[in-house]
Amino acid sequence: MESRQLRAAGRLIGVGVGPGDSHLITVKGVQALKRSPVVAFPAGRQQPGTAEQIIAPWGRRGQTRLPLEFPFVQEIGLLEAAWEKAATQVWTYLGQGLDVAFACEGDIGFYSTFTYLAQTLQRHHPQITIEAVPGICSPLAATAVLGLPLTVRSQKLAVLPALYTVDELEQALSWAEVVVLMKVSSVYPQVWSLLKRHHRLEHSYVVAYATRPEQRIYTDLSRHPQLELPYFSLLIVQKNPESHPDSLI
Amino acid sequence: MESRQLRAAGRLIGVGVGPGDSHLITVKGVQALKRSPVVAFPAGRQQPGTAEQIIAPWGRRGQTRLPLEFPFVQEIGLLEAAWEKAATQVWTYLGQGLDVAFACEGDIGFYSTFTYLAQTLQRHHPQITIEAVPGICSPLAATAVLGLPLTVRSQKLAVLPALYTVDELEQALSWAEVVVLMKVSSVYPQVWSLLKRHHRLEHSYVVAYATRPEQRIYTDLSRHPQLELPYFSLLIVQKNPESHPDSLI
Repeated sequence: MESRQLRAAGRLIGVGVGPGDSHLITVKGVQALKRSPVVAFPAGRQQPGTAEQIIAPWGRRGQTRLPLEFPFVQEIGLLEAAWEKAATQVWTYLGQGLDVAFACEGDIGFYSTFTYLAQTLQRHHPQITIEAVPGICSPLAATAVLGLPLTVRSQKLAVLPALYTVDELEQALSWAEVVVLMKVSSVYPQVWSLLKRHHRLEHSYVVAYATRPEQRIYTDLSRHPQLELPYFSLLIVQKNPESHPDSLI
Repeated sequence: MESRQLRAAGRLIGVGVGPGDSHLITVKGVQALKRSPVVAFPAGRQQPGTAEQIIAPWGRRGQTRLPLEFPFVQEIGLLEAAWEKAATQVWTYLGQGLDVAFACEGDIGFYSTFTYLAQTLQRHHPQITIEAVPGICSPLAATAVLGLPLTVRSQKLAVLPALYTVDELEQALSWAEVVVLMKVSSVYPQVWSLLKRHHRLEHSYVVAYATRPEQRIYTDLSRHPQLELPYFSLLIVQKNPESHPDSLI
């Protein structure tokens, strides 16, 4: 009875819950969270995780809350084991016909854990329906709190995730007017030296925890050769507004 | 009485209203629109503009609705004249101490008209307070409706606005795993030929009007050497998921 089975499985709904402020989730995201009998999210360490904190006001009584473990490591074997385990936990509910909303920080398709969970589930259960509700990604949140646009007019944008090399960064700076470095904390001193050589420090910015109470902003990085930064800090290199008509807000 | 004047001026609040679906605006954006006595937006042509359509469910009785003209041209003189005129119209209300929410499609800092309006107002009235509520930008909406992530793991992202050259596009393809071309309609045939030469058509996608009733999606562009596309169409070049472990959803 394949057709009955198709109808019976619940949907996995990825909800990008935005950067931190609970009100920077979309209306559609709130609706998905409220409607779903099961709400999953990355488990926090000592305290509730960011996504869990963001969705705290949007819960509904009687929902099953499902924290899923995703380790902060690069080792693909450990990551895959975590995705497999999380997919199995989620399938427990989907297989019973229950929808599961997965809340993740930022957007669901921008360097998101949701992608790996969805891929793993789809590999084991190709029939399941996966829906995606986009969210505000961190570069947009960071520039909003800086009071700057991310990009204007004919500016090109380059985004580098973690693990970038000096070479990649130099190429990005030569190609794009605006460069965003995600997860900059571990390589900050090297990045700072490179930006200094290229005279780009003055219009570079570091933002961590954008729109959250612990938000941290650093402008004019020439004053900050060393910074102790949290893991999810990002660095934005803008071009010099004085030298071009594409000035900042 | 400078300090009285400072307190008296209203705030300009840029609200990114997302790609099209009225429910893809943030909760904070809805609150800003409902609270503001004046709601401005880019004027539509024959029919209401996109931002105006998106915010239709979020209005409040008695609000002043202020359509502002922004011509679809590249000529900087015409654009600046339009920004000046719009800034004067908005200042009519700000100067009376009334807050003005400006609704714009997508995000407020990602190639957005809001930037130019805010810059023009700030140049004439440096004391005004400008706030920014970010929104879902079109690449995130496009990938969500495609059921794909925009970026995963160590993938680099390049975004090119309109007016890109073949050379810029070749550089982007060699540097980044994922390339987004905004406003691709006028150069689609040239882009298609270039992607064909680089064997990148199969995992390239065109999306127009994402999340709106008139949404259009084209996958596997090898079948589409020619497309009649609307102005705000975007093209996403992904890398071949078979050749890499960073596969799509």
